[in-house]
Amino acid sequence: MSRADRLVDLLAERELDCLLVTDLVNVRYLTGFTGTNGACVVTRDERLFLTDSRYVEQAKQQVAEFSQLEASRELLGDLAARLSGRAGFDDAQLSVKAHAALADKLPDGVELVPAAGLVERLRAVKDEDELRAIGAATKIADAAYERLRADGLAGRTEREVARSISRFLEDAGADEVSFPPIVAAGAHGALPHASPRDVEIPRGVLVVLDLGARLDGYCSDCTRTFATGPLEDRQVEAYEAVRATQAGALDEVRAGKACKEVDASAREAVKSRLGVGFDHGLGHGVGLDVHEGPRLAPSAEGSLEAGNVVTVEPGVYLPGEFGIRIEDLVVVTDDGCDVLTGFPKELVTVDG
Amino acid sequence: MSRADRLVDLLAERELDCLLVTDLVNVRYLTGFTGTNGACVVTRDERLFLTDSRYVEQAKQQVAEFSQLEASRELLGDLAARLSGRAGFDDAQLSVKAHAALADKLPDGVELVPAAGLVERLRAVKDEDELRAIGAATKIADAAYERLRADGLAGRTEREVARSISRFLEDAGADEVSFPPIVAAGAHGALPHASPRDVEIPRGVLVVLDLGARLDGYCSDCTRTFATGPLEDRQVEAYEAVRATQAGALDEVRAGKACKEVDASAREAVKSRLGVGFDHGLGHGVGLDVHEGPRLAPSAEGSLEAGNVVTVEPGVYLPGEFGIRIEDLVVVTDDGCDVLTGFPKELVTVDG
Repeated sequence: MSRADRLVDLLAERELDCLLVTDLVNVRYLTGFTGTNGACVVTRDERLFLTDSRYVEQAKQQVAEFSQLEASRELLGDLAARLSGRAGFDDAQLSVKAHAALADKLPDGVELVPAAGLVERLRAVKDEDELRAIGAATKIADAAYERLRADGLAGRTEREVARSISRFLEDAGADEVSFPPIVAAGAHGALPHASPRDVEIPRGVLVVLDLGARLDGYCSDCTRTFATGPLEDRQVEAYEAVRATQAGALDEVRAGKACKEVDASAREAVKSRLGVGFDHGLGHGVGLDVHEGPRLAPSAEGSLEAGNVVTVEPGVYLPGEFGIRIEDLVVVTDDGCDVLTGFPKELVTVDG
Repeated sequence: MSRADRLVDLLAERELDCLLVTDLVNVRYLTGFTGTNGACVVTRDERLFLTDSRYVEQAKQQVAEFSQLEASRELLGDLAARLSGRAGFDDAQLSVKAHAALADKLPDGVELVPAAGLVERLRAVKDEDELRAIGAATKIADAAYERLRADGLAGRTEREVARSISRFLEDAGADEVSFPPIVAAGAHGALPHASPRDVEIPRGVLVVLDLGARLDGYCSDCTRTFATGPLEDRQVEAYEAVRATQAGALDEVRAGKACKEVDASAREAVKSRLGVGFDHGLGHGVGLDVHEGPRLAPSAEGSLEAGNVVTVEPGVYLPGEFGIRIEDLVVVTDDGCDVLTGFPKELVTVDG
């Protein structure tokens, strides 16, 4: 059953006659198109793809199953005439201005219905090809950690390390990084979304490293926390507490488990071990986007399904002192999960 | 007069009581904030900046003139209460869903009014600091072309050349590339937005190279077309025709000139010289975004102003054969323009 066919089933659930897909990642998922301007319309009987003259040739090579139409660069004017009945659109993606332009050109009797998230629901469950791509992207990230272990960190700037990671990932076969690498030493590691600084990494600190590769469009995502020499005992204890929490969280992951429960047990485990915890979610789906569904977070609805690919990444952050995060990428199965990440989780000390 | 003060003048023109600024580039322009979650509200008497807990410390260092408020990560809920009267919002940026969430929480008597493009109007005219940053980013791009001339192109893949450009720009001091470099050899150069391929660049072809550096947030943008050895006469003739057109177009640029007229003369000049032309605009503004106002294009409204920074980039594209584009970055002045780009425009033959 093709992706578009499965989407049609979701349309029926929402009593939609068609869905307008404007988010480029969703367009890629449904059609294979990788250009920067395209959209599609899916109905029970029709699959229509539109792009402008710049991408017509590329679309011919990439897009199967969809009939193809050349449109003006704005797309929306030409799309309006193709909609019918209750027409779902991506209200989380379409701007107010684009929506107004679309509404202005609608044929009589067509109603625009907010319907964000339908393609994302399909994307959350990966097929074999997708799992292969994510697995290969994960191996490239593993190799980057091996390189970091070999090259060391102390005396280099965070920025230089981040750049060397990006270059390593590309040279190892990635299309690009899946996000700009995080390299955050000492107290800077207490900021979960730290940007690399032009600051030398000292000896004897913890360094949070968060990186991923993108391969054939699919992302990997892995965090490790290295030491640059001997640490204070409480830092080692905190590391072991996060490691134990992360291992425990992996044991909680399985199809059918409520997403917020997986998050809650890890959150409580860190808190009970260290008295402090983490503000971010325990994990998130990874695929064509490095952050997608399902989320493992206090506010997350729903349960895990076999074929979800999620991160499991508890951390601890002590402002002004240090941060620790350990993150694996896993495939959810009926009775647990397969961990894709291969790099070890014992505390790695470099520059030792 | 501060940027926010000048914005207040534009509010009066539109009879707005306040403006909600949600586009992060606009937020940066007004406040200096470079994080990934922030928004501001500007009224005649108040300048308010909101971010979430992750960025409070960073905002304290970066944001002056605005009072600062810590908000939840969604921001919009906390913003709604701060709006008053006729409240302008960025309808080109805000999604239908975010708009609905905002409307839901509005105090009584507040009306949301579409008002995209106000901050962009200010951004189109650069001040001295901005011109300095763009000038420095342009010098880095010039140096990348010197390196390409020295290193040659034939026998390398387009992808490898593109990566080496990105790395050179970073190593030369850029924060990052302002866009992924274009390296398009032979017939691939006939696609104005070609992606670099894993294909070796042959000898004796034209190669379109389009690259830019970002420095302190500001972009540069430069295109040159190199030859990898002796060319057929008609390719040399086409090159010289584009070069003459580009030189002529520079002569047309001055404050007060209608944007669409500058575009039209270059478009006609290429057409009369070669019988074919280009589908894209002659140029676009460059600043915090690599594509911003003013545009030089057939559909462009308005006239050039002193302090605009625009590209001037005519080209010619022969499907299946070759493409040529030559692009400088210039500052518009009262009586002409200052060309920022320093790399020569005579046909450069590498690998010769």
